[in-house]
Amino acid sequence: MTDTRTVAVTLGERSYDILIGSQLLEQAGEEISRRFPGSKIAIVTDTNLADLHLPTLEQSLARAGVTSTSIIVAAGEVSKSFVSLQTVVDQLLTAKLERGDFCIALGGGVIGDLTGFAAAITRRGMGFIQMPTSLLAQVDSSVGGKTGINSHHGKNLVGAFYQPSLVLADIDTLDTLSQREFCAGYAEMVKYGLINQPDFFEWLEGNWKQVFAGGAARVQAIARACRSKAQVVARDEREAGERALLNLGHTFGHALEAATGYDNTRLVHGEGVAIGMVLAYEFSHRLGLCNDNSATRLVAHLQAVGLPTSLAQIPGGVGDIEGLMHHIAQDKKVNRGTLTFILVHGLGQALIARDIAAGDVRSFLIDKLGQIKS
Amino acid sequence: MTDTRTVAVTLGERSYDILIGSQLLEQAGEEISRRFPGSKIAIVTDTNLADLHLPTLEQSLARAGVTSTSIIVAAGEVSKSFVSLQTVVDQLLTAKLERGDFCIALGGGVIGDLTGFAAAITRRGMGFIQMPTSLLAQVDSSVGGKTGINSHHGKNLVGAFYQPSLVLADIDTLDTLSQREFCAGYAEMVKYGLINQPDFFEWLEGNWKQVFAGGAARVQAIARACRSKAQVVARDEREAGERALLNLGHTFGHALEAATGYDNTRLVHGEGVAIGMVLAYEFSHRLGLCNDNSATRLVAHLQAVGLPTSLAQIPGGVGDIEGLMHHIAQDKKVNRGTLTFILVHGLGQALIARDIAAGDVRSFLIDKLGQIKS
Repeated sequence: MTDTRTVAVTLGERSYDILIGSQLLEQAGEEISRRFPGSKIAIVTDTNLADLHLPTLEQSLARAGVTSTSIIVAAGEVSKSFVSLQTVVDQLLTAKLERGDFCIALGGGVIGDLTGFAAAITRRGMGFIQMPTSLLAQVDSSVGGKTGINSHHGKNLVGAFYQPSLVLADIDTLDTLSQREFCAGYAEMVKYGLINQPDFFEWLEGNWKQVFAGGAARVQAIARACRSKAQVVARDEREAGERALLNLGHTFGHALEAATGYDNTRLVHGEGVAIGMVLAYEFSHRLGLCNDNSATRLVAHLQAVGLPTSLAQIPGGVGDIEGLMHHIAQDKKVNRGTLTFILVHGLGQALIARDIAAGDVRSFLIDKLGQIKS
Repeated sequence: MTDTRTVAVTLGERSYDILIGSQLLEQAGEEISRRFPGSKIAIVTDTNLADLHLPTLEQSLARAGVTSTSIIVAAGEVSKSFVSLQTVVDQLLTAKLERGDFCIALGGGVIGDLTGFAAAITRRGMGFIQMPTSLLAQVDSSVGGKTGINSHHGKNLVGAFYQPSLVLADIDTLDTLSQREFCAGYAEMVKYGLINQPDFFEWLEGNWKQVFAGGAARVQAIARACRSKAQVVARDEREAGERALLNLGHTFGHALEAATGYDNTRLVHGEGVAIGMVLAYEFSHRLGLCNDNSATRLVAHLQAVGLPTSLAQIPGGVGDIEGLMHHIAQDKKVNRGTLTFILVHGLGQALIARDIAAGDVRSFLIDKLGQIKS
């Protein structure tokens, strides 16, 4: 068993702790009853995780004398919908939970986003605890307070900024992930190095095998990623400026996810981000913002861990240029019709580039699509 | 035409102005284009108000060169639902409104609550302007940022604290209200006097006829009410403490509304609040918190303007004590199972009374129900 690390997220009266370590599911009851005495709990999870982890958490809460009820939704992106939102809210009210009580999101990004949003709007805001069970959720979606559901117009277009009161990231849950899921989460971890921490990127280049193996290196890497994100969020909670840097690789990545119909057999989010980050580096090079050595090193590292790095690796392709440009224009980072991209001057040197000409994006992507066929 | 008054609501970076005056619908385009240049607008209104006021507002926006689209929902409480919320959000996204664009809520409390909530969750928060057209909305629901919809578990159980960027309260729109609707809004105005401003209550006792007649006294009274509410909200935006005082008369009032099935032919919200405030004064007297002179003066004033003051005046009755106690327990001001009531030491001297014994409430209401039958 490895030591538990604590990362403090500093947001005034909305500050909270992220605990990263082993056996946190087993310790959750004790931790929660100590921090929030007298509160009732509703655990929200999905059908898959209900089998894997729910009994452990329920028993831990019961041992600590915490009253809990469990709400189980369908596994997968389908649950980020108005229908599931209404179902969860209704069950929270049926369970007579009050403002001072807590929802626990036990699951990956989908469960965290759905549960956080439900907590944000039930009685105009009740307590919320994240227990992320995927690497993606542990290093990204469980930190920072973005919650929400999808619309048929696009992903995450409906939601709230709503901070949890506590995050418990149990690294043991990652042992149940497939290699592909772990890799996808790893892409978001690499992102923090690429944004503003070249030393972390270099550390990952040298230590990724230990991170994949588990134990102390994994805890260290997750804590470093959470701290990176927490610092950015603390300075810009509602994405008025700097926080947009966290979208590195995401405008391209979201477009690729949309172009593949959000079909997880073809492309998962982290893979879209991996390819999207490579595209951001290549596009930055094309615009004369950085040299090509950065893109080369990035591609080499992502390939080493087993992540895709080019459009050609997406089964079934990504459609034509009109489709991609449509998805890019629908991305929520559009502001008054101009395109905003997160670009780079090099490894660990990301920047927010506003007023990027759509024509430049188009011709870059046309060339990339051409490379698939050739 | 009377002078326009401005009330500033001080909430840090969420501060905003409330403008109260004549012909503000006609001036809206100019005001909005000056304050928020380049923003697109979606007007949300209901089928009744679309006939009365929408053309005036649309023309005003068009004259000022502001692009707008209109979203029309069914009139009445039925629109404070998940279905209407999803419809409005979807239409905002279809209209390609972005974070920096604005929804205008053109209507009474229902439209304001629904539109504000839709603005709060669309793209995790877009701009929002209130244009309240009822007295109730002008003095209460358009100020303070409470937005939301109903659940079958109760009213306003789903929502967000979300502040508008501007409130334009055009008193001319009040000329289209029925006497009954105007009276209902007046009850909320009286409430501010009862909470902490005995001089305002006394002013209303002497000047209510001028307020009902319109013109400068009406603007003055609305501005005073808005300022009262704004001060409380500025000190306690998210109802951690003092803001609960604004619920004077509302725990009883909500229970009466629920007991009459939210049937507006029997009881409208402001009438429930009027009777609820009288009950709060009588209950306070019974608990030895205040003398009976306060309740007598309150009843006299409410009767003078034509508001109901007792359970006996509710057509069809309010059911039995079990039903009323159930509705009171479901009220969202319940905290960990104890009952919280807003009670009074006298006119203009309200207090938050926590840990009120349910038995005391029950026996008080049993006596009140007995008075109907006798």
